[in-house]
Amino acid sequence: MSAVYGDNLKLTLFGESHSKGIGAVIDGLPSGIELNEADIKAAMARRSPSSKSVASTLRREKDKYEIFSGFFSNHTTGTPLSFIIRNSDTMSSDYERISNILRPGHADFSGDARYNGYNDRRGGGHFSGRLTAPIVFAGSIARQYLASKNIFVGAHIKSIADIQDGDFTEFSKDAFSEIEQKDFGVIDDDKGLEMLEHINEVRLEQDSCGGTIKCVIIGVPAGIGEPFFSSIESKLSQMMFSIPAIKGIEFGCGFKFGGLRGSEANDLPILEHGRVKFASNNNGGINGGISNGMPIEFKVVVKPTPSISKSQMTVDILGKTITELQIKGRHDVCIVPRALEVVKSAAAFVIMDMYMGSKYHNRKPEDIQ
Amino acid sequence: MSAVYGDNLKLTLFGESHSKGIGAVIDGLPSGIELNEADIKAAMARRSPSSKSVASTLRREKDKYEIFSGFFSNHTTGTPLSFIIRNSDTMSSDYERISNILRPGHADFSGDARYNGYNDRRGGGHFSGRLTAPIVFAGSIARQYLASKNIFVGAHIKSIADIQDGDFTEFSKDAFSEIEQKDFGVIDDDKGLEMLEHINEVRLEQDSCGGTIKCVIIGVPAGIGEPFFSSIESKLSQMMFSIPAIKGIEFGCGFKFGGLRGSEANDLPILEHGRVKFASNNNGGINGGISNGMPIEFKVVVKPTPSISKSQMTVDILGKTITELQIKGRHDVCIVPRALEVVKSAAAFVIMDMYMGSKYHNRKPEDIQ
Amino acid sequence: MSAVYGDNLKLTLFGESHSKGIGAVIDGLPSGIELNEADIKAAMARRSPSSKSVASTLRREKDKYEIFSGFFSNHTTGTPLSFIIRNSDTMSSDYERISNILRPGHADFSGDARYNGYNDRRGGGHFSGRLTAPIVFAGSIARQYLASKNIFVGAHIKSIADIQDGDFTEFSKDAFSEIEQKDFGVIDDDKGLEMLEHINEVRLEQDSCGGTIKCVIIGVPAGIGEPFFSSIESKLSQMMFSIPAIKGIEFGCGFKFGGLRGSEANDLPILEHGRVKFASNNNGGINGGISNGMPIEFKVVVKPTPSISKSQMTVDILGKTITELQIKGRHDVCIVPRALEVVKSAAAFVIMDMYMGSKYHNRKPEDIQ
Amino acid sequence: MSAVYGDNLKLTLFGESHSKGIGAVIDGLPSGIELNEADIKAAMARRSPSSKSVASTLRREKDKYEIFSGFFSNHTTGTPLSFIIRNSDTMSSDYERISNILRPGHADFSGDARYNGYNDRRGGGHFSGRLTAPIVFAGSIARQYLASKNIFVGAHIKSIADIQDGDFTEFSKDAFSEIEQKDFGVIDDDKGLEMLEHINEVRLEQDSCGGTIKCVIIGVPAGIGEPFFSSIESKLSQMMFSIPAIKGIEFGCGFKFGGLRGSEANDLPILEHGRVKFASNNNGGINGGISNGMPIEFKVVVKPTPSISKSQMTVDILGKTITELQIKGRHDVCIVPRALEVVKSAAAFVIMDMYMGSKYHNRKPEDIQ
Repeated sequence: MSAVYGDNLKLTLFGESHSKGIGAVIDGLPSGIELNEADIKAAMARRSPSSKSVASTLRREKDKYEIFSGFFSNHTTGTPLSFIIRNSDTMSSDYERISNILRPGHADFSGDARYNGYNDRRGGGHFSGRLTAPIVFAGSIARQYLASKNIFVGAHIKSIADIQDGDFTEFSKDAFSEIEQKDFGVIDDDKGLEMLEHINEVRLEQDSCGGTIKCVIIGVPAGIGEPFFSSIESKLSQMMFSIPAIKGIEFGCGFKFGGLRGSEANDLPILEHGRVKFASNNNGGINGGISNGMPIEFKVVVKPTPSISKSQMTVDILGKTITELQIKGRHDVCIVPRALEVVKSAAAFVIMDMYMGSKYHNRKPEDIQ
Repeated sequence: MSAVYGDNLKLTLFGESHSKGIGAVIDGLPSGIELNEADIKAAMARRSPSSKSVASTLRREKDKYEIFSGFFSNHTTGTPLSFIIRNSDTMSSDYERISNILRPGHADFSGDARYNGYNDRRGGGHFSGRLTAPIVFAGSIARQYLASKNIFVGAHIKSIADIQDGDFTEFSKDAFSEIEQKDFGVIDDDKGLEMLEHINEVRLEQDSCGGTIKCVIIGVPAGIGEPFFSSIESKLSQMMFSIPAIKGIEFGCGFKFGGLRGSEANDLPILEHGRVKFASNNNGGINGGISNGMPIEFKVVVKPTPSISKSQMTVDILGKTITELQIKGRHDVCIVPRALEVVKSAAAFVIMDMYMGSKYHNRKPEDIQ
Repeated sequence: MSAVYGDNLKLTLFGESHSKGIGAVIDGLPSGIELNEADIKAAMARRSPSSKSVASTLRREKDKYEIFSGFFSNHTTGTPLSFIIRNSDTMSSDYERISNILRPGHADFSGDARYNGYNDRRGGGHFSGRLTAPIVFAGSIARQYLASKNIFVGAHIKSIADIQDGDFTEFSKDAFSEIEQKDFGVIDDDKGLEMLEHINEVRLEQDSCGGTIKCVIIGVPAGIGEPFFSSIESKLSQMMFSIPAIKGIEFGCGFKFGGLRGSEANDLPILEHGRVKFASNNNGGINGGISNGMPIEFKVVVKPTPSISKSQMTVDILGKTITELQIKGRHDVCIVPRALEVVKSAAAFVIMDMYMGSKYHNRKPEDIQ
Repeated sequence: MSAVYGDNLKLTLFGESHSKGIGAVIDGLPSGIELNEADIKAAMARRSPSSKSVASTLRREKDKYEIFSGFFSNHTTGTPLSFIIRNSDTMSSDYERISNILRPGHADFSGDARYNGYNDRRGGGHFSGRLTAPIVFAGSIARQYLASKNIFVGAHIKSIADIQDGDFTEFSKDAFSEIEQKDFGVIDDDKGLEMLEHINEVRLEQDSCGGTIKCVIIGVPAGIGEPFFSSIESKLSQMMFSIPAIKGIEFGCGFKFGGLRGSEANDLPILEHGRVKFASNNNGGINGGISNGMPIEFKVVVKPTPSISKSQMTVDILGKTITELQIKGRHDVCIVPRALEVVKSAAAFVIMDMYMGSKYHNRKPEDIQ
């Protein structure tokens, strides 16, 4: 079903861009997790439009959440944790004219077909990127949980247009944290400046641009995941393609595998202090759908924001006529910087769900090597 | 859960490479589907090792299935359709020595960690590519069902190493069928010959190679799928990453989106005989997770078969020693030609499941535009 | 998972008695259902404590819901419909003393064991009967949907203590409606008066009492449901046992079957206007888990409210001492009258979910006999 | 979905009475469970018709299972455990005349409606009681697993017609085992003889009779289960109503609660060696859907076998005519003795599934009080 994700930990999303609000229910959370609300707020802020000035929309949602249930005396209770975020900064109302002009690249037409025209199209409705705010909230809790298991999630903007960021020199909690604290989440700040310049140019052209994001999860012990339909790749990709604008994902070497030989692609097992590790990580930490103890590495591509001010030809579905459209308002020129937080959060939620289904769940820390 | 896939139509997979057999249960099939068993057998044969001589293993499984239930008087009954395929061509037994030497690129180590060493490792066990035979069986039924709705699935080998196949000149049932009848599933036979020569070279070097597969589904009406966790991309990718060796997937322009501008990426709506179509298909037939009536297009990458005869350094997990491994026997040099059938089958199963959850399910053909 | 119910239509419940509020998300609703909010409010009122004066608590929750998403221009949009009900009439706060004295008959001890003491025990927390308000809301929508398919749900108080109500003289929309409009939902008003007198006596004794509820669903066409795990009995009972205080369910003759012979128990098929009906309905409209076109009939038992003012011996879990407990405040003496609405609502939700999974879903009314 | 049960442990059932065979797939089993096949065979034998001579059919299925996968070197591997049981003793074939005469009390009509007449009706098809054999197999594994956690399942025939068995004088592994080893599963053998005499009388009258079964599960630690939709009652009842012929279930005092007062119904907490227990077990070991550490107790009713030799009036659906039916062959007069094993097995499977979702899963025995 569309709005519920997870096996051991279930996330139910709801809301529309211009409905009373958005939110989610997280079912299956262990009881007794002490939440650091400052961390949650910081994560929400990193996703919010206000913080990424050059690239993003001027709509200023405060994303102020209200926890409704499942949280008591600063700890999770173990019952469904629900929260809502009111849509404060919307000018529209029920009486607002709903456009019949299909916005190119959006889900206007497919959504209409799916819901027989009854969906609330104002501001993109349920398809709005705004729905990623609850994912960040849920993921932020997951990240706090995972941190207590020494599992950390990091990510950086890997490319904007054809400008490539460098690679992590090491995968570590600190290295991840360093990127996270930057205004623009790249490793190589010079490249970051180039990207920002490019984004600004694109903005002046009333256009938008895409990019890629690299995500790494460290500390996942070997033996998490399943073969086939609940492979780590299956679960992560199911989640990643829930994020609007994501259109591709690859693990480890990904599409480069197509050009490799087995002798180049195979990660050779080695011994490190008597424990099995691998000499390389082409498989992105996953063999047969199951973690092998190496960092989980994947990359996703984010398509250019469809909303552009440039004039576009399209169709008025009511009149069934061809028409020209210039989308007013100030939109995200490049969604990649904000998507960074969403990707990390979404990944954390998936890994927490899978961890809870693994043999490590409920075990005392000292019983896990 | 690992072994069960689907919302409206559930596939439960079972079996190991060297257990008594493999098989699946398909739950939720509509009753009264008349099965063309010749088509099923042909699909099974296209996946089987015997048919792709240069590229594949010499193990000759007949893949002779036996339908156990859910099928009566040549029609599906609507109750769970189960079938088994016996593992006839295995020489091993319970008493066989189980190797403690980790095969690079395989799930030996991660599987051991997952199952605490109790998994049946003979021939790859449950991780064996042999488990894709039941997927082909199930997908073949799905393809017959979808054909009755005028939905067709086609695919071709898009690349082997750096040799690229051409593109479909048109997407049609006949064009798809033409590729399917070829011994080597490419559009451009000259490129196909180059690929085969390359595969042969790789074989002589006792190595293996990867490639990519392009898959297209035509006839899917607009409005199938869901936003978020059951988006077409989410469901297809979850399934695709269940196929051993698949390490990346992209929809429409996929990773190329990272370098595009919105004005280039957006598919402009047009009118065709008074109905909305799109001037391009960069989004691969999907907006907001939902079909837009255009062909669904995606590409997957297949990593090189990990089993190679070339000598590799690895670890003996029992003795915890570094050791050298030369994998005996004759293995698939390139799994891509056989994976072609699996990708089509798996895609068909997903689309049938989603179709059954859509507004078109149970409607009379004349009521669907 | 505890908080999510349904296959085609999913209900996610959340909230605690004294948290900020309670609510639910309904995922999978067809788009375009025009909601009659007056009907929803009437149903909520029938469940609310204020309306059943003799039997119920004096806590006066207004149960004023706020629809948050999935509803636009008075129709369901097809996206998740979420709603919240704020807990206005609570006096407690985070700082309130949480009792360590186990209330007999409540989930205090089992809940503590489940949540390691982190659950919000104020007012029963997540176990509170208050959580049935969202079920009534959801069920009210389901009843509106089912009514459009000519499916109607009726129920009456079958017994309080040993006072038995009569039986429906006919099963019809009107007969159901007549009971629903009564202050005390019985068929035989004289028996109803007896029951109310009994309840009043029990109240004076500072005790509580239980009863049974009979529920009937008419208009369900033959062929809905599944054998085994999704039988109508399986799905209805799963849902009914979600309602706090329900401890037994029986379909058709139920436990009387234990004393019958096959020749008495079998419902003989007959012909009515050329269509198959049955001469009796001992099986409660269900054979093999599937509807046979006869009314679906079941009975549930409601245990006496555990909260009584009478003194009871119990345990203080902190001090691990035996102690005496007198529960202050004014509680429901008999929850049965309020549970009536919950049972109907819950049943309607189940039947809607199953209808949506049946061959009748999406079919035009004229195509359904 | 009909054929798949379970959250953490999934059971997929398949087969028809006269198809090639029946079987199941168990997904999610922990790896490394050493199976005692003698125990499995003994359980299968207790369910099989041959062992209950007076009461049961003369059809002699050997119920010889073949484990297909997921089992290696006498241990579960952790991958899907599948098994098949061939239907050896069937005389019918595809060409057999399929009766158009509806057998009263069977799912002939509802099944036809559900499957549009495509279901395999021979011998009851998928609705046959024969499908309970795989449940016994799966439950037998669950019972072995639970025994390792000191959890034991017992049951006895509580009544046949109006003849009531006595009660357990104590709940213990040995007491349960003693009943299990009897040919006729009652506590009071004198009552058992009465029941058998009654069954024989009913047999001579060419009729059938029903009864009730009491089931008890001991050793379940407090804190297993969930509020609402995954309450122990919800999960157990969902499973119990999957067993053909079960039409009612009650927990603890069950329907007697309707006549009790709160002061009688409440189980008072007490201290036993410093630990919380309860002075009575009216709630059947469950409060708020969650185990409270007391024995889980429930009772189910089994309706009389619908197949009787006595003449019955019914309908020929092809000719749409009223007709008289005498069911030939020798059928179970009373299914209760055989259902005993099914109820225990089904209960064990449910409790294992719920245990695996609880905080006790993966914990070392010494860490569980």
